Amino acid sequence: MTQTTRRTFLAAGAAAFTHAVIARAAYAQAAPATAGPVDPALIDDLVAANRILVDQGVVDGYGHVSVRHPADPQHYLMSRSIAPELVTAADIMEYDLDSTAVDARGRTSYLERFIHGEIYRARPDVKAIVHNHSPSVIPFGVSTAPLRPLYHMSAFLGGGVPVFDIKAAAGGATDMLVRNAALGRALATTLGARPVALMRGHGAVVVGPNIQLTVFRSVYTEMNARLQAQAMALGGPVTYLDDEEARLAGGSVGGTVVRPWELWRKKALAR
Amino acid sequence: MTQTTRRTFLAAGAAAFTHAVIARAAYAQAAPATAGPVDPALIDDLVAANRILVDQGVVDGYGHVSVRHPADPQHYLMSRSIAPELVTAADIMEYDLDSTAVDARGRTSYLERFIHGEIYRARPDVKAIVHNHSPSVIPFGVSTAPLRPLYHMSAFLGGGVPVFDIKAAAGGATDMLVRNAALGRALATTLGARPVALMRGHGAVVVGPNIQLTVFRSVYTEMNARLQAQAMALGGPVTYLDDEEARLAGGSVGGTVVRPWELWRKKALAR
Amino acid sequence: MTQTTRRTFLAAGAAAFTHAVIARAAYAQAAPATAGPVDPALIDDLVAANRILVDQGVVDGYGHVSVRHPADPQHYLMSRSIAPELVTAADIMEYDLDSTAVDARGRTSYLERFIHGEIYRARPDVKAIVHNHSPSVIPFGVSTAPLRPLYHMSAFLGGGVPVFDIKAAAGGATDMLVRNAALGRALATTLGARPVALMRGHGAVVVGPNIQLTVFRSVYTEMNARLQAQAMALGGPVTYLDDEEARLAGGSVGGTVVRPWELWRKKALAR
Amino acid sequence: MTQTTRRTFLAAGAAAFTHAVIARAAYAQAAPATAGPVDPALIDDLVAANRILVDQGVVDGYGHVSVRHPADPQHYLMSRSIAPELVTAADIMEYDLDSTAVDARGRTSYLERFIHGEIYRARPDVKAIVHNHSPSVIPFGVSTAPLRPLYHMSAFLGGGVPVFDIKAAAGGATDMLVRNAALGRALATTLGARPVALMRGHGAVVVGPNIQLTVFRSVYTEMNARLQAQAMALGGPVTYLDDEEARLAGGSVGGTVVRPWELWRKKALAR
Repeated sequence: MTQTTRRTFLAAGAAAFTHAVIARAAYAQAAPATAGPVDPALIDDLVAANRILVDQGVVDGYGHVSVRHPADPQHYLMSRSIAPELVTAADIMEYDLDSTAVDARGRTSYLERFIHGEIYRARPDVKAIVHNHSPSVIPFGVSTAPLRPLYHMSAFLGGGVPVFDIKAAAGGATDMLVRNAALGRALATTLGARPVALMRGHGAVVVGPNIQLTVFRSVYTEMNARLQAQAMALGGPVTYLDDEEARLAGGSVGGTVVRPWELWRKKALAR
Repeated sequence: MTQTTRRTFLAAGAAAFTHAVIARAAYAQAAPATAGPVDPALIDDLVAANRILVDQGVVDGYGHVSVRHPADPQHYLMSRSIAPELVTAADIMEYDLDSTAVDARGRTSYLERFIHGEIYRARPDVKAIVHNHSPSVIPFGVSTAPLRPLYHMSAFLGGGVPVFDIKAAAGGATDMLVRNAALGRALATTLGARPVALMRGHGAVVVGPNIQLTVFRSVYTEMNARLQAQAMALGGPVTYLDDEEARLAGGSVGGTVVRPWELWRKKALAR
Repeated sequence: MTQTTRRTFLAAGAAAFTHAVIARAAYAQAAPATAGPVDPALIDDLVAANRILVDQGVVDGYGHVSVRHPADPQHYLMSRSIAPELVTAADIMEYDLDSTAVDARGRTSYLERFIHGEIYRARPDVKAIVHNHSPSVIPFGVSTAPLRPLYHMSAFLGGGVPVFDIKAAAGGATDMLVRNAALGRALATTLGARPVALMRGHGAVVVGPNIQLTVFRSVYTEMNARLQAQAMALGGPVTYLDDEEARLAGGSVGGTVVRPWELWRKKALAR
Repeated sequence: MTQTTRRTFLAAGAAAFTHAVIARAAYAQAAPATAGPVDPALIDDLVAANRILVDQGVVDGYGHVSVRHPADPQHYLMSRSIAPELVTAADIMEYDLDSTAVDARGRTSYLERFIHGEIYRARPDVKAIVHNHSPSVIPFGVSTAPLRPLYHMSAFLGGGVPVFDIKAAAGGATDMLVRNAALGRALATTLGARPVALMRGHGAVVVGPNIQLTVFRSVYTEMNARLQAQAMALGGPVTYLDDEEARLAGGSVGGTVVRPWELWRKKALAR
């Protein structure tokens, strides 16, 4: 991905922002009705996802993961505002795509839940979303060095990883938080059709067609960032997967996600 | 922060030192009276803080953390001289701002307790202090590269991180330890109104309005140093939070400290 | 190893590939007969090897290790397709050198089992094989910097570490997986008589005369890669073992493998 | 320490070697008599030291630590040849300074025990010795970058860290192991009066006036190497402790070793 491409992403984000401010003002914030009960196995997967992301070093006391409601694509499920490591089934709340809680009962929501609502709205193919401060990824969000797929495990990074600059999207300095629908929409625009977007001075957002692959992509985005930085430090040119390799490997490796997931879930839920 | 700013900090420290030597000579070292009992929950927080700093890799067998006495701003509480990981409630001692123990009963005090006494004296807003040898931070204390806020979690670093050079403060070679009130006062002068100061060839001091935020700042100063070094190693320019972003994000993120604190405390006290 | 040497390895691999495609087409894939029962101690070693490689950070949820069948050099033993950390004795399957399972009973095989079959076929001296995505090794597989022996523990790297480029072997883009006998044969050709070959954009393969030494080499290839990157980052020339030192040290250190193996196995099987 | 200084150390080592070969030939290797029983608390400290070095990442499956016999300076105590993590009191053996075991009873000795015997012979002040493959230290042994004291905790490195090149000492390629008295004597000559010497392509040797300080120095040599590499990577000049600071800090910090030792020993023996 060239710097030009990065600027294109950012410009698109800024344009979307203006549009979104107007569009979002029409939405009401009243508590929506539930989309109904969810298979406990999916809730368990969501709880496991929180703990797996901790175990794998992708989130610390911050970060969140959601799944789209299986019965209603206009709703999603996510923990109340606590550290991912502490999440249990009882902490899972339901939101509509305005990121308004169905039944808050005094529970606090993540300030940045709009990341989830607005990406689910913009991307019907997305069924799960992770927002993290993945440590090896942060440096790439503040550098001119693009994140690129170094090996087959992170082949999904092929095609480029856009960087969301909240200052460009908001038209000035912010507290760096995606704290409303307009900013969430701008981030979704930067993400476009990609699985991963970096957030300058903040972290990343990772999406996928199910929770397993989304967690997998979060883990291997972190790993790729670490390995890419090491490869760059060796000096000399680095050979990345070419576009066709990335496309082919992304498909093949994506099909093996059950292997690490089985391991990760077992360890996460055993605690 | 420019190098010029660093020199200004150091010059201020050296000037303060001379003043402090004279001023401190008037203080007596007799055992002071207690300021009275403290809420056991605060003691638990202080014990937890010691262990959290270990868990998060901010301290090893060395380092210390204190809180100002809630009933008397002229007193503070800190463990006797043992490794932070071993601290229990029974090890917490009370000191006045001359860093004289109220009731030593043969217990050894940290040699560098003057860091705490003198900063509490100079900074009425400070309610908790951490002194550490935070590993990723040490290299920034001996380098000309200034530590700067890379992301919102370390926004409190905005405005510059002064570096205390004990040689400049003492006017010559020392054993690097802040082992008396004069050196503590010089360090407090270098710290000025900031939340963090680096100590050349030694470590860092971190302060805050309560123990939770002070521990939080210690953890994310370490993390920022690690991530900044990685970002710099990628080559090319690094985009830091600008001053306004740092100010805004510092406020917002500071308000979320309960989230990691709940996690950290639970794990620390479960051991 | 010079870059010229690397190109020679790759050219050899590409040539071998064409030959292999033709040769392999003649092999049948029918279920072969078992070579008979195996000493349970060897199975325990193979299970331990899987866990040791996890403990030592050489494999994560992916990677596999095999041993040649002690009673029939035309067969080998390897786990069904699960994460190495979960492998138990019941998961070990038997394969012939076409990498066809003797008794699959519905169990899934690793897609890349051809790495094992074809190397066993090409290298009668090899009794155990590890395929991994060893994190510190990956960067050397995509860099022009050759992996070289930095200290006596990795002296077996003396003589050069070839890099397998699957694109050159396949004559175009692939999904990066050694998913058939032809690619396995090309990899075996690149490996030649060496103990280790890197796989560009993928990982590495490590072989040896027994499972202990093969695990040992996997561990210290990872360690050497980490230390070499650090030494290179210090700037200035790096002194590697010379050829004679590598030869002598490789022999001596290889004779001490029982020492770490005893430790590693005890810890791995205690879980 | 300049490169010139390093060469001086090496030249001294080479000269000593020739002398040592002749001198050592006169020693007999018959089993010596015991110097008598040892306080179990010292044995416990030696066992703890083995485990502490593992816990602190200074040794892996290799490395060894010894203490001089308290009743006879011509004898020392060290484990039989097993991984440090597995050492118990029953594994401790007694050697004379020729590194001949008093009562082997079939137990295997470390091949490189001559490191210990010859340093004890050359350095009456030394009461404990660690030989390790300390990971962050290895790169400095193969680089032209000298290891220097970055902070007060590693002030004992002040005055320079010599590098032992076994090729220069032996006059040609070896298997890198200090496998006889002549090589041990050459290493002792390179070490001179210093607390630490690096061994090119191998590891390091660390000595001290007691086991606590020797373990402490091993831990903080590793830490200093890690931090120094990070500081160097930041670019620009690095400020090390000056000679007087190193001397003063070395004395002061050395006096605090009981603090981490109490922690380390407690954790090591609790396993």
